[in-house]
Amino acid sequence: MTHRIAILGASGYTGAELVRLIATHPGMTITALSADRKAGLTMAEVFPFLRHLDLPRLVKIEEIDFSNIDLCFCALPHATTQEVVAKLPKHLKIVDLSADFRLRDPAEYEKWYGAPHAAVEVQKEAVYGLTEFYRDDIAKARLVAGTGCNAAAGQFALRPLISAGVIDLDEILIDLKAGVSGAGRSLKENLLHAELSGGTHSYSAGGKHRHLGEFDQEFSRLAGRPVRVQFTPHLLPMNRGILVTVYVRGQPQAVHETLARAYVDEPFLKVLPFGQLPSTRDVAGSNFCHLGVIGDRIAGRTLVISVLDNLTKGSSGQAIQNANLMLGLAETTGLMLAPLFP
Amino acid sequence: MTHRIAILGASGYTGAELVRLIATHPGMTITALSADRKAGLTMAEVFPFLRHLDLPRLVKIEEIDFSNIDLCFCALPHATTQEVVAKLPKHLKIVDLSADFRLRDPAEYEKWYGAPHAAVEVQKEAVYGLTEFYRDDIAKARLVAGTGCNAAAGQFALRPLISAGVIDLDEILIDLKAGVSGAGRSLKENLLHAELSGGTHSYSAGGKHRHLGEFDQEFSRLAGRPVRVQFTPHLLPMNRGILVTVYVRGQPQAVHETLARAYVDEPFLKVLPFGQLPSTRDVAGSNFCHLGVIGDRIAGRTLVISVLDNLTKGSSGQAIQNANLMLGLAETTGLMLAPLFP
Amino acid sequence: MTHRIAILGASGYTGAELVRLIATHPGMTITALSADRKAGLTMAEVFPFLRHLDLPRLVKIEEIDFSNIDLCFCALPHATTQEVVAKLPKHLKIVDLSADFRLRDPAEYEKWYGAPHAAVEVQKEAVYGLTEFYRDDIAKARLVAGTGCNAAAGQFALRPLISAGVIDLDEILIDLKAGVSGAGRSLKENLLHAELSGGTHSYSAGGKHRHLGEFDQEFSRLAGRPVRVQFTPHLLPMNRGILVTVYVRGQPQAVHETLARAYVDEPFLKVLPFGQLPSTRDVAGSNFCHLGVIGDRIAGRTLVISVLDNLTKGSSGQAIQNANLMLGLAETTGLMLAPLFP
Amino acid sequence: MTHRIAILGASGYTGAELVRLIATHPGMTITALSADRKAGLTMAEVFPFLRHLDLPRLVKIEEIDFSNIDLCFCALPHATTQEVVAKLPKHLKIVDLSADFRLRDPAEYEKWYGAPHAAVEVQKEAVYGLTEFYRDDIAKARLVAGTGCNAAAGQFALRPLISAGVIDLDEILIDLKAGVSGAGRSLKENLLHAELSGGTHSYSAGGKHRHLGEFDQEFSRLAGRPVRVQFTPHLLPMNRGILVTVYVRGQPQAVHETLARAYVDEPFLKVLPFGQLPSTRDVAGSNFCHLGVIGDRIAGRTLVISVLDNLTKGSSGQAIQNANLMLGLAETTGLMLAPLFP
Repeated sequence: MTHRIAILGASGYTGAELVRLIATHPGMTITALSADRKAGLTMAEVFPFLRHLDLPRLVKIEEIDFSNIDLCFCALPHATTQEVVAKLPKHLKIVDLSADFRLRDPAEYEKWYGAPHAAVEVQKEAVYGLTEFYRDDIAKARLVAGTGCNAAAGQFALRPLISAGVIDLDEILIDLKAGVSGAGRSLKENLLHAELSGGTHSYSAGGKHRHLGEFDQEFSRLAGRPVRVQFTPHLLPMNRGILVTVYVRGQPQAVHETLARAYVDEPFLKVLPFGQLPSTRDVAGSNFCHLGVIGDRIAGRTLVISVLDNLTKGSSGQAIQNANLMLGLAETTGLMLAPLFP
Repeated sequence: MTHRIAILGASGYTGAELVRLIATHPGMTITALSADRKAGLTMAEVFPFLRHLDLPRLVKIEEIDFSNIDLCFCALPHATTQEVVAKLPKHLKIVDLSADFRLRDPAEYEKWYGAPHAAVEVQKEAVYGLTEFYRDDIAKARLVAGTGCNAAAGQFALRPLISAGVIDLDEILIDLKAGVSGAGRSLKENLLHAELSGGTHSYSAGGKHRHLGEFDQEFSRLAGRPVRVQFTPHLLPMNRGILVTVYVRGQPQAVHETLARAYVDEPFLKVLPFGQLPSTRDVAGSNFCHLGVIGDRIAGRTLVISVLDNLTKGSSGQAIQNANLMLGLAETTGLMLAPLFP
Repeated sequence: MTHRIAILGASGYTGAELVRLIATHPGMTITALSADRKAGLTMAEVFPFLRHLDLPRLVKIEEIDFSNIDLCFCALPHATTQEVVAKLPKHLKIVDLSADFRLRDPAEYEKWYGAPHAAVEVQKEAVYGLTEFYRDDIAKARLVAGTGCNAAAGQFALRPLISAGVIDLDEILIDLKAGVSGAGRSLKENLLHAELSGGTHSYSAGGKHRHLGEFDQEFSRLAGRPVRVQFTPHLLPMNRGILVTVYVRGQPQAVHETLARAYVDEPFLKVLPFGQLPSTRDVAGSNFCHLGVIGDRIAGRTLVISVLDNLTKGSSGQAIQNANLMLGLAETTGLMLAPLFP
Repeated sequence: MTHRIAILGASGYTGAELVRLIATHPGMTITALSADRKAGLTMAEVFPFLRHLDLPRLVKIEEIDFSNIDLCFCALPHATTQEVVAKLPKHLKIVDLSADFRLRDPAEYEKWYGAPHAAVEVQKEAVYGLTEFYRDDIAKARLVAGTGCNAAAGQFALRPLISAGVIDLDEILIDLKAGVSGAGRSLKENLLHAELSGGTHSYSAGGKHRHLGEFDQEFSRLAGRPVRVQFTPHLLPMNRGILVTVYVRGQPQAVHETLARAYVDEPFLKVLPFGQLPSTRDVAGSNFCHLGVIGDRIAGRTLVISVLDNLTKGSSGQAIQNANLMLGLAETTGLMLAPLFP
């Protein structure tokens, strides 16, 4: 049996990544695809790499007959999302890939996104979509809010450590290196090949990146008291991939054992042997996250490095992982594709 | 039911690509993996991107119990290959990815590869592995010789045109642009990131590239008379992908119709609407080949552009396509993975 | 003594390249810089790589006091250019980097650029700016029209061969590979790093690229009869550089000798030993053009490959070379900077 | 008047960068070039991008007549260097680009480089080559030991802060992102384009990178007590450039003012306005270092980001800057070349 799927916002990178993954997913069939400015076009016109697939034409959201749909992925820009989701039929299961329903506290939402939330009642239904930590809630949820790609990479490195109490909560520093697809298909000078390739720079440094809202919410909840991390993102000349270098205070072996134990049965989270460090190249195009731990020469200081593909495990793969649970499918269905290398 | 597979030469890029594709192939199980200098290591040590898979340890070829194997992929260097294949048990089905069994005429082999062929008798058994044109023979073959990646890209553009007689056989020019993974994991200065990225140059120009042996053999056979093309490869700063710009004399519409008709039922060959041209980005990581046709401003001159991923459709994907036929499986089994974009 | 320079259109890549080169030019001082939307900003704000220079602030063209200026580089978009140049004071020497004054025949201009020329009288004054072939005219000119970057690469490979009569004029084919900076700072999806890196595709194929107008004009003039070449550009994932693979009919040695003899005293044009082929990496950031010649295996067919940096020798370096002549300076002044490698 | 220069180790990237810079240097003439395995070749054969220069042929070191030379750049591998330098004539001024003479304490050398120093007496003569901080000593020195590229980037960010006492000396963390040319022309799998492009990973993490020896030596000397920093390098898919993200404890404005004041008269060190952060793209190919400062959301925590080109300011440009002082030339002679962008 197959489930009927709609994707709202199919003309962006996360929308296209959903289509790529569902193309070989045995339990999902794409029934509707929406795009705003590109409504009327075929997917092959917007994304020629999907030319081999038999897909519905792109339409406006209001043209979709949702009575026909089991689950809807929402890959729209933030702010737009909350207005669209609020109007969707209540029978519909929804996995949202935007930032709109990640923060439980409307005041936090307003602080990080600069405007009041327009669908506070809907927000209350939302389950935070970091699958490995919210499985049971996700399986029962109607609306799941996908974790931000950077926020996912950081949380995979840190959550078990915070829960186990093996690190100093006031001395957590996350230095992040991210590929450019996380910025989406936006037309900006600094995203041009001529300007981005061959160099690197920091952005949203100093505590301004919005994914800090997720770190604050989740780490404080886990710790039972406020936790504030340092977080500095850098843009790299690569398309897919996030590497977070997480600096913590704690014993290296204890940190490694805590992570290894926490993830021993996780199909997508792979902790490397102690002292080995991962590369983004080894997870590109896949739903896997690799984690490595090493001690610093200064006693009591430890590095955790985690890598994932921002479009897959950081966004669309994660979304399908959640959708699998919501539809009663095995969590890994359609997601065991190996990374692409070289 | 699953077929038991061995891969000889699993520590190179085409070997790793075979593993990547078989990882989600429902009819194949990897039973043995060989490597020479890296025997004794796990695949995760040689290719960390395959860390999530449960794979046999790398061994020397002579350690493999072939009584246990249904089909063997041979991804060894040329010259070595003919010696190894000559000694493999006769019950074994073999798909060879090297150049060793592509040329039927030993004199041609010696001309292009600079040494006499060491297994001329085995060569006689070999079927040329360009699946779309040798399907029936491949299904019955014990030994299939995979087409070269560049040779495949050029033949997809030209074979139907030669067969249909719509182009001038003495005026065929192939200008090829290739990514670097085709050169394999060789340690050469010009393959270093510092030297290759950001630039392009030609190599094996002027009629020296060995894949010309395949063009000569196949095009002459099709035409029933000698055909000699011009062929100039260029190395590009990208990892996967081949684009061939084929210049022919013939009517653009006739060329387009001939290709479109020839490939109308092909699952992996996609002819674009007349006047549209393909990009290597749209096939990367997949077994698809996209072809486009456009007329030149000079009457009677036409361009055909075809793109494919050298490691997939040009090598390991093609090999699995052939193996599927040899094992009685549907030809597309395990090969409908969508390309990776962006 | 230093000459006072204005640059119109300083916020684009060719404008910035002019500033880069003039920064260490002993005979030029930048007195005025214009930009349209970015007027009011400093160059350091628009191009932080120029932060170390003491430069005038960007202004609107109409704010510039041209009585103060000896020579004006015009790096504006085509169409805009002809309107601006028509209004500039008549005492002013002008080197134009746009396409507006390259084609002598207004009908040809209209054919390739889709609209009638708005300054036909000014056009009559313009000297075509391919320095090595128009030196004397350029030295005396008031207005020089810079050669297109692709047109320059092709002409360096072909002009001496056409003049010497050593090739068949009806069988010239130019397959071009170009980096992305030639497209300028335009915000288009296909120029984004996420879409351009890692792949290649053709554009303006089949005889549609506007630089064909220059080839037609120049080659026909040289030959004394109409010459029409085939020309297919491809976009490559690199920032700077053009490689043209030129396929001709003629004897390889004669072709090589003709080029070597023609350029033996040229400071910027380097003909490699017979059989060696150049790389774009070896000219990046410089005003040099490297040329190589090799014979094909088919007798009587020859390849000429030329490489140059589209922003330097193909545009801003060429412009300064012309300006040097117009100002009575040595032609190489400020232009002997070595390429950047790796 | 021009000074006669020898370059030992001219076939590596730093050797070639020296040639590139000296090509337009008004006070230096290259008189001898050595290479080991490539002796006998011309520079154009080893580095075709230098084809336009009239250079001496590569020879073995023992073939050089040093009586003829004023100053010798030594761009040899470490360990080899100390043996070569010990045998050079004593009249010769030497700028060494290797790691061999950077550490004053032989025990520290042995700790970081794994073997006793073979020329301890020569070491005593060496002046540490971070020009901006050792100018007077360098001007008088016979032997200058160039600072490591990573060590230079970190010290530019930190030295004035340590001297001024505005940061906590026990809480300094340097997260470094480096392009691949720093690894030299070594043939290693992880430096291949196919493996490096499109991804990132850490290396020598946890306090193992040898440039820590320089940080320890210099920061402790400045502070008058032991200082131990954390330092984690990452390899990025780019050729030139280092970005260090330095996390310190101290007031952001005080940090910014301290740096701005320290570097106000420095020709190559540019402190950006408070809150602005630099990009490696803006210094590529140049001798400039850009520095930015921003406060974190956590009070009392500050980020300093500095960028430079590892081959220029981090190595060969720095070496020429030192040589200028040693030869009595203006420090900036030949080094004001603008960066290359895009």
